[in-house]
Amino acid sequence: MATDYKFEGWVGKDKSSAEGKMVWTEYEPKPWEETDIDIKIEYSGICGSDIHTLSSGWSPANYPCVVGHEIVGRAVRVGSKAEGNIKVGDVVGVGAQSDSCLGRDGPCDPCSHDMENYCSKPVITYNSTHRNGGKAMGGYALYHRCPSHFVIKIPPGLDPAFAAPMMCGGVTVYSPLKHFGAGPGKKVGVVGLGGLGHFAVLFAKALKADEVVGISRKASKRKDALALGCDEYIATGDDADWEKKNAGRFDIIISTISSPKAPFNDYVDLLGLDGTMVQVGAPEEPIPLSAFSLIAKRKRLTGSSIGSPKEIKEMLELAASTGLKPWVEKRPMSEANQAIVDMEEGKPRFRYVLVN
Amino acid sequence: MATDYKFEGWVGKDKSSAEGKMVWTEYEPKPWEETDIDIKIEYSGICGSDIHTLSSGWSPANYPCVVGHEIVGRAVRVGSKAEGNIKVGDVVGVGAQSDSCLGRDGPCDPCSHDMENYCSKPVITYNSTHRNGGKAMGGYALYHRCPSHFVIKIPPGLDPAFAAPMMCGGVTVYSPLKHFGAGPGKKVGVVGLGGLGHFAVLFAKALKADEVVGISRKASKRKDALALGCDEYIATGDDADWEKKNAGRFDIIISTISSPKAPFNDYVDLLGLDGTMVQVGAPEEPIPLSAFSLIAKRKRLTGSSIGSPKEIKEMLELAASTGLKPWVEKRPMSEANQAIVDMEEGKPRFRYVLVN
Repeated sequence: MATDYKFEGWVGKDKSSAEGKMVWTEYEPKPWEETDIDIKIEYSGICGSDIHTLSSGWSPANYPCVVGHEIVGRAVRVGSKAEGNIKVGDVVGVGAQSDSCLGRDGPCDPCSHDMENYCSKPVITYNSTHRNGGKAMGGYALYHRCPSHFVIKIPPGLDPAFAAPMMCGGVTVYSPLKHFGAGPGKKVGVVGLGGLGHFAVLFAKALKADEVVGISRKASKRKDALALGCDEYIATGDDADWEKKNAGRFDIIISTISSPKAPFNDYVDLLGLDGTMVQVGAPEEPIPLSAFSLIAKRKRLTGSSIGSPKEIKEMLELAASTGLKPWVEKRPMSEANQAIVDMEEGKPRFRYVLVN
Repeated sequence: MATDYKFEGWVGKDKSSAEGKMVWTEYEPKPWEETDIDIKIEYSGICGSDIHTLSSGWSPANYPCVVGHEIVGRAVRVGSKAEGNIKVGDVVGVGAQSDSCLGRDGPCDPCSHDMENYCSKPVITYNSTHRNGGKAMGGYALYHRCPSHFVIKIPPGLDPAFAAPMMCGGVTVYSPLKHFGAGPGKKVGVVGLGGLGHFAVLFAKALKADEVVGISRKASKRKDALALGCDEYIATGDDADWEKKNAGRFDIIISTISSPKAPFNDYVDLLGLDGTMVQVGAPEEPIPLSAFSLIAKRKRLTGSSIGSPKEIKEMLELAASTGLKPWVEKRPMSEANQAIVDMEEGKPRFRYVLVN
């Protein structure tokens, strides 16, 4: 069956695309399979990874590529073997992952335990190759084709524009908050108040942590931090003796920053006994870590990578039931190039969402 | 009440003591309290910390000092307010910690949860000051005086010479093995096969881990590793592609090494999903840690510091019930100076115990 719609979107053809030089053009989606779902995209969040990929910042990108992995829209075609009881017309979303082995190559421990995000054979939503050889193309586009296992229904009562940036940015912090026990009785610090950090504050509050404290460099972010819901704010560049005054304060720290020059050991010092610092930002250079601090209070440094379909569903339900409202700035899809330039300059408060 | 015995032992008077220049002389024990127990020392293990302290390697030592915190002997005086139902004549031991706040300065979360080793006001067994102002003096001596809360009965059936090095070396690895779940279904790697590493192998086996693998630099240690009970041995300096061949293999790694030049990131790569590497050796310089590896498989790097009285009791019971036999070389107390020189040269297989 041929489709009566075309796959068109913002295509990055080389590194310069990251500077706002993506080109709107038609491209070939992955070859259709009956386990797939086609989505008419309504909202597509802008994630830092998009720009890292366009610029080949982490590794050489497989140009041409269409980025965007915070996709929400309506199902317009549902394969006969699709999972999840999704109907044409349903509002659905896709995050940063589009496929995993799902046990098709033999037993897979992560896939059999609802941890597809830790499968060793992931297909990510762009700059990746599907198992049938098709190229994975992302959400800065009109349509998106995705294996149904990774297509999630957006619950009624949740604004689809809010749901979009949760598909990657939201779940990247929701997953470790939940996994490492953020909730009543726990004090949570959030390092870095950008897109991920703002979600960490919102979800830590939604999970009913006793205290949620924003931690960033400049005192000028204090107002936004408190407006977001932080119980307190620490400006590491401006507050004197912040590391001493807050030593041992937190049970969980979510670190969203990726500058290897950040004072990681000072952040670790903010943890109490058996505290956990979760790195979700990925510094390109090694972090010089002092082991003494870990040993003295049995602290843990760990990382976390996006989230599973199950966790995305849980997160969306939590957001819907608590009326969670991310700070989203809508930008027309036509202005995607300007939006990624503004994103690189740190302008969004806190997440851009492209709108078709 | 005056005692009819004198406190005499090997006193370090300056840094040169670490080179085998301790001096046998009388010293003043801590002032007696009715919560104390005096022990006639029979065995005293030699721990790497002893030499670090004598040499002021970690920080300036408070000379004169008597080191040694793997003490076993007989109770010869038991205070009227002593805890633990210890009688004169009982075989008892003392590890690296001699006191903590025990809630005497207000509520203490670690002390109220059997985690005295994580109290923020510890008194360690030497080079430390007791709460009554007395100087804490260690076990290279004839007698030892210690608050009874930290004096542990040695269970019948456990050779006191075996129990001595467990008091610090044993519990330093037993505690994290137990806490992080080493047991049936788990695969354990042990990095570094010295005093601590050899205990980690023995206790991981006693806890019935599925697999225990020794990891050290040289192939020449393979024979000892297998004789100790390792299921396998990895020589990082001699086995080609060891890090690739063993990637993702372990649930728990106990790292006993403290050289900051060791390939820490390669060790982390040996962990599988949700694996935990526990650093018990304390490198003096920061470890250059790659965050990518932690993020991709939600791995944890943590540390652990000695063990609590409760854990020491558990460990001794486990050792007694499983017939666990550490590799101990007995040295006469009179040869303590030569023994620490030999220790520094890496000669013990795997732990020296001084015998009175």
